[in-house]
Amino acid sequence: MSPYRASPGFTREWAHFGFTVDDGVATVTLNRPEKLNALTFDAYADLRDLLAELPHRGDARVLVLRGEGRGFCSGGDVEEIIGELRKLDVVGLLEFTRMTGAVVRALRECPLPVIAAVNGVAAGAGSVLALAADFRLLAREAKFAFLFTRVGLAGADMGSAYLLPRIVGLGRATELLMLGDSVDAERAERIGLATRVVDDLPAETQALARRLADGPAQAYSATKVLLTREQDMDLASAIELEGVAQALMMRTEDHAEFYAAWSGGRRPVWSGR
Amino acid sequence: MSPYRASPGFTREWAHFGFTVDDGVATVTLNRPEKLNALTFDAYADLRDLLAELPHRGDARVLVLRGEGRGFCSGGDVEEIIGELRKLDVVGLLEFTRMTGAVVRALRECPLPVIAAVNGVAAGAGSVLALAADFRLLAREAKFAFLFTRVGLAGADMGSAYLLPRIVGLGRATELLMLGDSVDAERAERIGLATRVVDDLPAETQALARRLADGPAQAYSATKVLLTREQDMDLASAIELEGVAQALMMRTEDHAEFYAAWSGGRRPVWSGR
Amino acid sequence: MSPYRASPGFTREWAHFGFTVDDGVATVTLNRPEKLNALTFDAYADLRDLLAELPHRGDARVLVLRGEGRGFCSGGDVEEIIGELRKLDVVGLLEFTRMTGAVVRALRECPLPVIAAVNGVAAGAGSVLALAADFRLLAREAKFAFLFTRVGLAGADMGSAYLLPRIVGLGRATELLMLGDSVDAERAERIGLATRVVDDLPAETQALARRLADGPAQAYSATKVLLTREQDMDLASAIELEGVAQALMMRTEDHAEFYAAWSGGRRPVWSGR
Repeated sequence: MSPYRASPGFTREWAHFGFTVDDGVATVTLNRPEKLNALTFDAYADLRDLLAELPHRGDARVLVLRGEGRGFCSGGDVEEIIGELRKLDVVGLLEFTRMTGAVVRALRECPLPVIAAVNGVAAGAGSVLALAADFRLLAREAKFAFLFTRVGLAGADMGSAYLLPRIVGLGRATELLMLGDSVDAERAERIGLATRVVDDLPAETQALARRLADGPAQAYSATKVLLTREQDMDLASAIELEGVAQALMMRTEDHAEFYAAWSGGRRPVWSGR
Repeated sequence: MSPYRASPGFTREWAHFGFTVDDGVATVTLNRPEKLNALTFDAYADLRDLLAELPHRGDARVLVLRGEGRGFCSGGDVEEIIGELRKLDVVGLLEFTRMTGAVVRALRECPLPVIAAVNGVAAGAGSVLALAADFRLLAREAKFAFLFTRVGLAGADMGSAYLLPRIVGLGRATELLMLGDSVDAERAERIGLATRVVDDLPAETQALARRLADGPAQAYSATKVLLTREQDMDLASAIELEGVAQALMMRTEDHAEFYAAWSGGRRPVWSGR
Repeated sequence: MSPYRASPGFTREWAHFGFTVDDGVATVTLNRPEKLNALTFDAYADLRDLLAELPHRGDARVLVLRGEGRGFCSGGDVEEIIGELRKLDVVGLLEFTRMTGAVVRALRECPLPVIAAVNGVAAGAGSVLALAADFRLLAREAKFAFLFTRVGLAGADMGSAYLLPRIVGLGRATELLMLGDSVDAERAERIGLATRVVDDLPAETQALARRLADGPAQAYSATKVLLTREQDMDLASAIELEGVAQALMMRTEDHAEFYAAWSGGRRPVWSGR
């Protein structure tokens, strides 16, 4: 547990998705399979709040985001979200969109690596959750659909118009966000939207999660945080930030362990510190 | 017509390219086929000024940019532009380069989606016009050539060194802009420079233009404007902008229409408002 | 030689790599083949200082960076660098990381195009040196490994978390920097990390270097400098910078030579001015 957690405790039960932590691997399972794991107001709120707590718990080194059943996440529920939003005034609408954006910001700023295990359809807000992860492992039947314009909304939602061009380039991002057409797994891999398309998604997800949880966690964390930040920095500032961060990393136990292991002709045993 | 147009009228006739508006689809046809549609001072000026008027007319929801004959646009005419520029002083040269840059800026900031229908060669300034479009549909015989260094000029022209790395990545952009070699349609598609390579360019262009003109126009417009702006924004600001913009979009007629259609089990009829 | 070089002379001999200038082509050869050209404190320092001098010498128009023997550059030497760093305090560590970052910054800001001829393994700092070049020509047996996390350090080193996402996209960069797995030549080409994979690396490197040295050098230089700068600029500012730079380029001897050659029906003879 982080030494910098004072009055608030940790939430005991997350009611709007499954949540487990197993030997350093935290897993969020979106669990409304009959609705292809469509999101609700409460699921968004819980995601935002879990991501704020997670780094302070001290028991997780990597987060896996997965869906139960056939789908990954079909986005905001048409009845429970779009229908309800129809009743809100503009201030209420902004409270909602700020909450959904806060989830993506929390995913990008979370100091733990995040793996999206995309088993099936990732649509609308579901596609942006996957976009905000660090790794996107896709089953062969997975597909993305940034279908916002198909419901009459902007293709720019929860940071998608920031993230997608930086992942697949501005031309392809324009096509995908403006038209909202589906992208199958094969194309997703070809354009860099998928990290990898795999045959056995649970096994490959578990293998990657274990590798990240058992490895030099602070090194992974620093890499993620700097990747996020340097998207918004100029060359000289980025190089200065990396210089300071790497000097700090050279004083970690894991870097010392690497050198000791190398000198001793053995494999390093990472502590994550 | 926009309510925010006061004293200036609209230009009646564009003398330096073909211009039509047909059921929401505006089309600019570069029409000097004997010169592969090379640009002239007047063609640049008219493009800049048309792009300023177009969003205020109220009759166009998408712009198609195409070339007559074999080529798309071979860039600035060697005689009528390069030859004339040789006679200018540095202030005159800067007036010219600022005008050409203003065309690209107007294309990127135009709130309408722009389709470049690239039928043949897109060279020099012609390649940058295509680069500034949102969609690049290419005929199989189309090709790009950012050939600026081949005339002794910088490969950075009209924003090409800003746009191309954001479309195909910095490594490929460096190669293409520094060397000025041709890129054929097949490679253009592979690296994300072409949206799509098609067999029947006029039919596919028309189909995409109709889809954009008949769809939720404000949703397409917001997507484009945010994509343009968020290239220059940091993550947190981009998410805030999307939150505010999407809250606004949730009050559009088209989003209400989507929900009504979904609830009624029918297809939405978009008004573009 | 530059007119803006006053008291300092030029370094006569670079002791920590091979250095030649041959008819406009400067070549740095990393020459510890028995260590796969691992870097030392002195090699970093000499690279930084050579890059500061090189543009002022006046005899070089392009820089080739290559490795002797089987490897390109295996990064910082484990014994001579990592081992020595273990003995330093934090100020000493920061002096080191700032020096390594200064090499990358100098490569990106160097007004000459830089070709990395990657003959074999480019690992750790060696992979970032290649990343900072403008062209990456790869032999079929070349491979990249951003293996920083494997030694317990951040994958963000010497600007890698700034450069790599801008070259291959944020998704792929996250995978490569976080995991540190090898990338073979074929994949490097597919994702835009290699400019080109070639069979005869020395011949192809020489051909590209000659083309750059014999061509309109100021045009190449301006293209590179603007590409570097416009990664950190907004659209409107980039277009303004290109407008001013291109107006200047229109007054170069090489642009005049293009027009004269074109008018005379002959090939241009570039002076590089």
